[in-house]
Amino acid sequence: MSEIFIGIDVGGTNVKIGLFDSELKMICKTSITTEADMGPEVVINNMAQAAKELLTEAGFSLQDIVWVGIGTPGPAKYSEGIIIKSTNMPKFKNVPICKMLNERLGAPVVYDNDANVACWGEYAVGAGKGVKDIVFFTLGTGIGGGIVSNGELVHGCDENGAELGHMIIYPNGRSCNCGQKGCVEAYASADSTARRATEAIEAGAESSLKQVLDEKGKITSKDIYGHLAKGDKLAKEITDGTAEALAITCINMLHTTEPKRIIFTGGMIAAGDVLLNRIKDFFNEHIWTLKKETVEICFAMLGEDTGIIGAAALARHAKQQGKLK
Amino acid sequence: MSEIFIGIDVGGTNVKIGLFDSELKMICKTSITTEADMGPEVVINNMAQAAKELLTEAGFSLQDIVWVGIGTPGPAKYSEGIIIKSTNMPKFKNVPICKMLNERLGAPVVYDNDANVACWGEYAVGAGKGVKDIVFFTLGTGIGGGIVSNGELVHGCDENGAELGHMIIYPNGRSCNCGQKGCVEAYASADSTARRATEAIEAGAESSLKQVLDEKGKITSKDIYGHLAKGDKLAKEITDGTAEALAITCINMLHTTEPKRIIFTGGMIAAGDVLLNRIKDFFNEHIWTLKKETVEICFAMLGEDTGIIGAAALARHAKQQGKLK
Repeated sequence: MSEIFIGIDVGGTNVKIGLFDSELKMICKTSITTEADMGPEVVINNMAQAAKELLTEAGFSLQDIVWVGIGTPGPAKYSEGIIIKSTNMPKFKNVPICKMLNERLGAPVVYDNDANVACWGEYAVGAGKGVKDIVFFTLGTGIGGGIVSNGELVHGCDENGAELGHMIIYPNGRSCNCGQKGCVEAYASADSTARRATEAIEAGAESSLKQVLDEKGKITSKDIYGHLAKGDKLAKEITDGTAEALAITCINMLHTTEPKRIIFTGGMIAAGDVLLNRIKDFFNEHIWTLKKETVEICFAMLGEDTGIIGAAALARHAKQQGKLK
Repeated sequence: MSEIFIGIDVGGTNVKIGLFDSELKMICKTSITTEADMGPEVVINNMAQAAKELLTEAGFSLQDIVWVGIGTPGPAKYSEGIIIKSTNMPKFKNVPICKMLNERLGAPVVYDNDANVACWGEYAVGAGKGVKDIVFFTLGTGIGGGIVSNGELVHGCDENGAELGHMIIYPNGRSCNCGQKGCVEAYASADSTARRATEAIEAGAESSLKQVLDEKGKITSKDIYGHLAKGDKLAKEITDGTAEALAITCINMLHTTEPKRIIFTGGMIAAGDVLLNRIKDFFNEHIWTLKKETVEICFAMLGEDTGIIGAAALARHAKQQGKLK
């Protein structure tokens, strides 16, 4: 009998499924459309069916599955295995996804939110490998977070911890979608970075990005890095604003759970060293002088399969912990 | 044979020692002068001797000691049981305090910094009892911190985590002793609170505190609360500044380790509800609207014996964990 871990990454559009061995090497993977409007019963049947077919194709059987890991966006009661609701899947309300998958696959299921799953993947086999304390940021539409402290994910008292995008770094600053003002997300997410550039141009700032705005009607963070590479001054200012906000957040996390590595992921990291180096510059500018800090600030390594790798890594961790099935 | 836990709280002036039963009820306690200038050998001999006398007086013997807990100010390698150096005890350099105490008392010794020890005491038997996630602030000359996440203290990768006073809440704001700008400590410690009042008066602000400054040459945080009670406008503004800085830090901790309770201690809490209620007001003003937060913000309960209670609680925890002796 083999030891197979299954990782499932549920998004509003696609569900990705991967089979992994006990070293977390990917054996094979597949992707199906979510079809969220068919409701939870159909969606979960489809994902179980796809997992079974993947097993069969690879020469395994249901008996080979040790644990299944799954990640979805929140909010959910992860420890109880229940999706409370979902913006992208409106028919999913109080769905006992772990129980339903367990009934269909016969193996125990561990569940967490997508940011924690990705964080755990980087911790187990990516940019966080080899240390016990990391902090993880996803720079996308918003900013998601994950914390591993002494080898365990930090969930918080109500499973709503590590919402690092909503740390307030500029009190009474820019409004955030969450209702707070001055969150790091309101400055440094891909969307906020683009929005700050748009606002600056609309307020009269000179920039080669103005032409992009005039022609396309909007600016993306990708546009900003493109124009930064060509020497645009506003693009540099906007990038610096993003980097400084992230650097201050890194300092605050250093004084909280004291990670050995701080890892960024998401579309924004396509900007490359031009962004990473500015984050490090601002970190060094703002950090205390009491002691030299040895924290490493870096980008994630796992790429597009992060979700299934992380879910499988959580599954393996559940097995290693001897969690009750 | 009885089960006795010893808690030791090492300060620059006094060493406090207490005996506790397995329910963490204090049996008896004593205090000796530290005499730090006699060097570590003498100091540790004295504290072991005092512990032995306390045991004898209470009718116990060395064989009854299960574990010893000890707290000192940092920096230290707590997990290795070594005081690296000490501002108040300059002759203490790389002192293997756990090993030395173990040789003299015959029991295993667990060691942590004073803020973590106090945090753990509140967690075990004080204001944090009954929950698994707390955040703890000491408002004194500086601001110290402690975090319990899922029932364990957060130490960080280099045992320097939970330095919560140095979270930056106003980037490029007031200078902090640590070399950063805008730390919460630079606004909301007892010293910084008093300093902000002094600066305001020197800059011409009208206040009944001016007379205090003229007569005594300085203002303390206690003066500020006294004059606040009498309706002084500046005292209210300064208190609000302290409360708002602390509230923002509470919000940031909520989005990090998501505590169920946030606990304040230190001389400043003598101010009472007038301070606590303002912290809650500002917390409610700045917190997000995504979900209603149920975190409780409160004051510590243990008072002057926190250090020995916390150290004994750590000792009991070490036993419960089955730590290697």
